[in-house]
Amino acid sequence: MPEPRSGSRPTLEAVAALAGVSRATVSRVVNGGDGVRPHLADRVQTAIQELGYIPNHAARTLVTRRTGAVAVIIPEPEARIFSDPFFSRQIRGISKELTAHDTQLVLLLVEDHCDYDRIERYLAGGHVDGALAFSLHTDDPLPAIASRLGMPTVYGGRPGWTAGPGDEDRVTYVDADNREGAREAVRHLLGQGRRRIAHICGPLDQTSAADRLSGYHDVLPAAGPELVAVGDFTAAGGAHAMAELLDRDPSIDAVFAGNDLMATGALRVLRERGRTVPGDVAVVGFDDAEPVAESADPPLTTVRQDIEGMGRMMARLLMERLGDGREGRNVPGPVITETALVRRASA
Amino acid sequence: MPEPRSGSRPTLEAVAALAGVSRATVSRVVNGGDGVRPHLADRVQTAIQELGYIPNHAARTLVTRRTGAVAVIIPEPEARIFSDPFFSRQIRGISKELTAHDTQLVLLLVEDHCDYDRIERYLAGGHVDGALAFSLHTDDPLPAIASRLGMPTVYGGRPGWTAGPGDEDRVTYVDADNREGAREAVRHLLGQGRRRIAHICGPLDQTSAADRLSGYHDVLPAAGPELVAVGDFTAAGGAHAMAELLDRDPSIDAVFAGNDLMATGALRVLRERGRTVPGDVAVVGFDDAEPVAESADPPLTTVRQDIEGMGRMMARLLMERLGDGREGRNVPGPVITETALVRRASA
Repeated sequence: MPEPRSGSRPTLEAVAALAGVSRATVSRVVNGGDGVRPHLADRVQTAIQELGYIPNHAARTLVTRRTGAVAVIIPEPEARIFSDPFFSRQIRGISKELTAHDTQLVLLLVEDHCDYDRIERYLAGGHVDGALAFSLHTDDPLPAIASRLGMPTVYGGRPGWTAGPGDEDRVTYVDADNREGAREAVRHLLGQGRRRIAHICGPLDQTSAADRLSGYHDVLPAAGPELVAVGDFTAAGGAHAMAELLDRDPSIDAVFAGNDLMATGALRVLRERGRTVPGDVAVVGFDDAEPVAESADPPLTTVRQDIEGMGRMMARLLMERLGDGREGRNVPGPVITETALVRRASA
Repeated sequence: MPEPRSGSRPTLEAVAALAGVSRATVSRVVNGGDGVRPHLADRVQTAIQELGYIPNHAARTLVTRRTGAVAVIIPEPEARIFSDPFFSRQIRGISKELTAHDTQLVLLLVEDHCDYDRIERYLAGGHVDGALAFSLHTDDPLPAIASRLGMPTVYGGRPGWTAGPGDEDRVTYVDADNREGAREAVRHLLGQGRRRIAHICGPLDQTSAADRLSGYHDVLPAAGPELVAVGDFTAAGGAHAMAELLDRDPSIDAVFAGNDLMATGALRVLRERGRTVPGDVAVVGFDDAEPVAESADPPLTTVRQDIEGMGRMMARLLMERLGDGREGRNVPGPVITETALVRRASA
């Protein structure tokens, strides 16, 4: 900060004077209290309370090497982050868990790859203890940056990249069982007698999209490429893909969309083309993040993933990894959470 | 960070060795190059490029007293931040301006007042150069924290608080002309022959809500309290207030809502009660942040404020205030931006 700190802020010296102990004793209490006799520690705590003293964490960081803050990095345009409830849900889960650990969530926005120079400088500056990152694409520079900086990082979503040789074993991530979730969606459509089942997949440089496409093909190995269109996980992308599919094959009687937003775009195009849902075409989405699936017209049958729970789990794994500062090299394996089909009117 | 930095990260010493200069010379180049002969500076820059050296900003901060980062603090529940496009617009404007200044945006979420202890510690830790805060309520502890820490801060919205004696003159803020915008909305409804014009106002511990209510009363000084209901800037709050108003006075023929989300809630209740819009009841909102007003049914006449522009202006004023580190005491006055009525089908 360019301005000198206000003179009215209580200092370490003031705490020491009020408690009648040395500066070193106050410092030891502030940094965990090791080796301070209990009655002295009590006197220091009372003086801290009385003066409203706030430890200088820049100095504290030099001792504990901790900032009490964690970065959350989402390499998606801010317009997507604020329009797809998936992101707010994941952040909500992360926020709850970090708050329970009295740790500050620091959200860093990444509009495009150019921003990474600045983000690398910020991460290198020692302002956070670790990072949580999700919605990465295969060409994302973040894993290499985190690896270079030795920054403890937990990812949301199976990595589609490796930051270096042997890196797979050092990456902790949380994901839903996207492939099995997709299989269940397609089996449900088959079970309802649908025979021309199309798939609108997300961007294939994201493993969530690729894994859901694999699940579709697991159940329908004979489905040709004319039944698959690529969207971008937005409603507009889903609408565009739906129009493309209907142009290619007007006999389509079901669509499995890779997320709920794309499914709402598909619903709009089906309505514009005079197709009833689920009468003419059944539609299944993926996510079940409020309010999209429930408030769609008709409400969407979808594959629910526990988005908030995954966020909490990411934060918990990072907190475990940070441990007490001595277990920093403990890298837990991935956590894969189950999905569940939620049946509503659209299929 | 709990892990020692990876041994493979290039050090200042490595740069000095490769460039054939002293550590002090490298340090001077990294911190701006004052007093370093150009050919030596070139050699250092080349070595930095070659090794991919990243300066230790913790150390650099001790020299320049700058982190290159700015906190954005929004004391609203995360559910509101992600559902009202006002917030993403403001953040977009801030983000664009900070990016233009190669400054990192650090978003800090505040779920409730308990979070402020942690936020104060983070701000006190020297991890950001300044702060931008918006959507404050009158009892918000942030202004006092910023004042105590001497943290350069620019606010979005006219302050409804003072952090201390004489503080009014030291507060920089950006706001829309809420009062005149409200007057224009109500005058428009009068001009269309409406005679029982109600107002749904936002929470009155926010000056934006209070100023819009004042504008309503400026034009309709005789309007009684039965024509005003308090919402909370959400669609659900607007619906609740609309129902209350209709119960009190079924002859209402127009509603000015304090923001677009509350207006959409009002539209829903009017539809449920069999009132046509604008036939039976005309509705005007406030904000015009996509997609709410345009995609409402019917599309909303509303008071547009330049939300993104206000965000940019907040960031610009903070950057000016931070200046080159020597003009830190320069506090510019408030900036008030104009509003404009946008006419659509609802009124």
